[in-house]
Amino acid sequence: MTARAVAAPLLDVPGPLSKSLLSRLGSQLDSRAVQFFADYDKSHDNFLVDVDGNEFLDVYAQIASNAVRYNNPTVLQASRSEKMVSALANRPSLGVYPRSNLTQNIHRLLRIAPAGHSMVFPAQSGSEANELAFKAAFFYHQIKKRGGPGVSWTAEELDSCLRSTEPGSPTLSISSFRNSFHGRGFRSLSTTRSKPIHKLDVPAFDWPVARFPSLRYPLHDHVDANEREVRCSLEEVDYLMGTWHHPVAAIIVEPIQSDGGDDYAPASFFQGLQDLTKKHDVLFIADEAQTVDLVTFGKKPQTAGYFFHNPLLHPDKPYRQSNTWMGDEARLMICNAVIDGILENGLVEKVARVGKTLYDALEALAEKYPDRIRNLRGRDSGTYIAFDVQEAAKPPMNLSVLS
Amino acid sequence: MTARAVAAPLLDVPGPLSKSLLSRLGSQLDSRAVQFFADYDKSHDNFLVDVDGNEFLDVYAQIASNAVRYNNPTVLQASRSEKMVSALANRPSLGVYPRSNLTQNIHRLLRIAPAGHSMVFPAQSGSEANELAFKAAFFYHQIKKRGGPGVSWTAEELDSCLRSTEPGSPTLSISSFRNSFHGRGFRSLSTTRSKPIHKLDVPAFDWPVARFPSLRYPLHDHVDANEREVRCSLEEVDYLMGTWHHPVAAIIVEPIQSDGGDDYAPASFFQGLQDLTKKHDVLFIADEAQTVDLVTFGKKPQTAGYFFHNPLLHPDKPYRQSNTWMGDEARLMICNAVIDGILENGLVEKVARVGKTLYDALEALAEKYPDRIRNLRGRDSGTYIAFDVQEAAKPPMNLSVLS
Repeated sequence: MTARAVAAPLLDVPGPLSKSLLSRLGSQLDSRAVQFFADYDKSHDNFLVDVDGNEFLDVYAQIASNAVRYNNPTVLQASRSEKMVSALANRPSLGVYPRSNLTQNIHRLLRIAPAGHSMVFPAQSGSEANELAFKAAFFYHQIKKRGGPGVSWTAEELDSCLRSTEPGSPTLSISSFRNSFHGRGFRSLSTTRSKPIHKLDVPAFDWPVARFPSLRYPLHDHVDANEREVRCSLEEVDYLMGTWHHPVAAIIVEPIQSDGGDDYAPASFFQGLQDLTKKHDVLFIADEAQTVDLVTFGKKPQTAGYFFHNPLLHPDKPYRQSNTWMGDEARLMICNAVIDGILENGLVEKVARVGKTLYDALEALAEKYPDRIRNLRGRDSGTYIAFDVQEAAKPPMNLSVLS
Repeated sequence: MTARAVAAPLLDVPGPLSKSLLSRLGSQLDSRAVQFFADYDKSHDNFLVDVDGNEFLDVYAQIASNAVRYNNPTVLQASRSEKMVSALANRPSLGVYPRSNLTQNIHRLLRIAPAGHSMVFPAQSGSEANELAFKAAFFYHQIKKRGGPGVSWTAEELDSCLRSTEPGSPTLSISSFRNSFHGRGFRSLSTTRSKPIHKLDVPAFDWPVARFPSLRYPLHDHVDANEREVRCSLEEVDYLMGTWHHPVAAIIVEPIQSDGGDDYAPASFFQGLQDLTKKHDVLFIADEAQTVDLVTFGKKPQTAGYFFHNPLLHPDKPYRQSNTWMGDEARLMICNAVIDGILENGLVEKVARVGKTLYDALEALAEKYPDRIRNLRGRDSGTYIAFDVQEAAKPPMNLSVLS
């Protein structure tokens, strides 16, 4: 993975300077997942340089959290602007005392919203975005059950919710899929099902989990089996939504299950899911794509939130769905600069072109070495391409810890 | 509350420009709690100026989220630095690829840690900080129960946690107090007990809640009654921790219950709580002060997290307590500039001096008008002073919504 080891060979990672800093950091916080200390002034393009002068091709893009290259000029320019200086020094509570340019910033953010989604609820992280989306779904479910936004709250509801008991604190659930990752916040963690490292020892809600389709590759050799697999998954979702011992308020799904092993599902699966959410009258939450009820986003945009289109997802009263910061204006401005950088440089088209070249080359290799490159997937998904290996060499620290 | 209404009288809030922007913002997000649009370039000292030229004495400090004055020069300088530009443009995942100056930034943050607390887990919001502290408490509880950090996880634990069932997802609880506010995230919301607006319709964990002492004022007239009140609260905590149907992993308390009505408790109460947490072997989490096991912080520092001192609060394996950003380096730098600004200008001493003047004047008024100024409290708490009124005039929008 090293592109150009400038000073030290890869085995010297972390190098002496990183090691020295690590011993200090270890007394200040849990530094056990730190790989090395980066020198971001020297990092460039997709190459991450560490303090010891090692240079890496950053195929992880931090931890899937960086959308454009290091020191991207458009993003640097936004970071140097006087508007940014004020956004940092005079941080507004966006839900109460926003700056006049908030409408413009949101307008520019909505450039990346799925078609039809005209509104956003901003957040600071993808995990927070998912939890806010769940809260929106619970509000929506209960307000509908109560008879609409005009129906008053009862004294029993108001009193019981302060004791965290029913009916004010209802027993509702969010349905998710095996191997999913929706964050490590508490409510989002109840829907995450990918790895014990995220979940073990943390109390969780008793919520349903269905099978995500596990496709066989190459797709054209397994058409019937894959159709059965999709049907089987949808039937389980249908059964769980109809029979779960708590009402299901929403279902959340990743368009591509990433943390759980880069698993793809066909459009027919998501179409079937949409039909089922309509049948059972529950909301459809997509963790980062699709035209559904709520689309949550985080990481690479540098800010987070959920896009939506139904005004009834505003709860019946103001300040029910709220928090101090409602995202971060500074990070919203960075997000817009990232979008600018992507659009100005035609990166979406470039990723499609490079991804096709990469996929075609991997496909030729997979035909030549079928035992070594298995289940190649991600055609027409840009560079979001994955394959399985028969027996992996012991991975370096970052692989074993992060994937 | 208006200091100098420059252009329009208070009744014109929101003014025409704010109204026009509000109608646009309302189509983009839930803007019902927005009071007006601020002009932060014109805001100065503690005066917030809106886009229509109205000027307000900002006694709320945004929503208790601003520690120093608008356009504080020390904070502006930090916002303009080249280090800040890089922190914004090249945002590191702090738990994996930190910048070399992270150790220095953390060292400077620890200036505000309570005595003895030498470590921090950074976060992006106070709610996230509390949830991370709860997770740390759950990890600690279960690792101890398992027999220590060296004991391996069983196959049953690993398998059951992915299904969100016991034993991998244990049923544990966090104890809190009536009228408390610990955030609106999902797990933190289960401990918040202040107002239905925060909690209604959101599923919650079945966790214990105890009575926070409700003192009578003036304190010197009610010494015996207040001692009984503290004892009564501590007895309830003792009973709940000993009998609750799920094990209690930690207890969380605010040093001053703010959202719940500015309620103070004496040092003897917190000392008694500490004794009880030792007796029942549970962790003691303070939401923003005290030398306990974990001290969470957020809002005014512009960044968030928890301070701690016991290395066993690092879970047994790396990456168990983790997330993408682990806070935000840019906001960490702003926090350090805020601390600098406070120290350079001797603001702690100034607040103590001004607070004493204010308290003494209010005390004189309370003696003169005992029916109008009731339960004056907050002596020796700087400007953190509160009193109750017999019958409030209909408050303006921000009062009714936010407090």
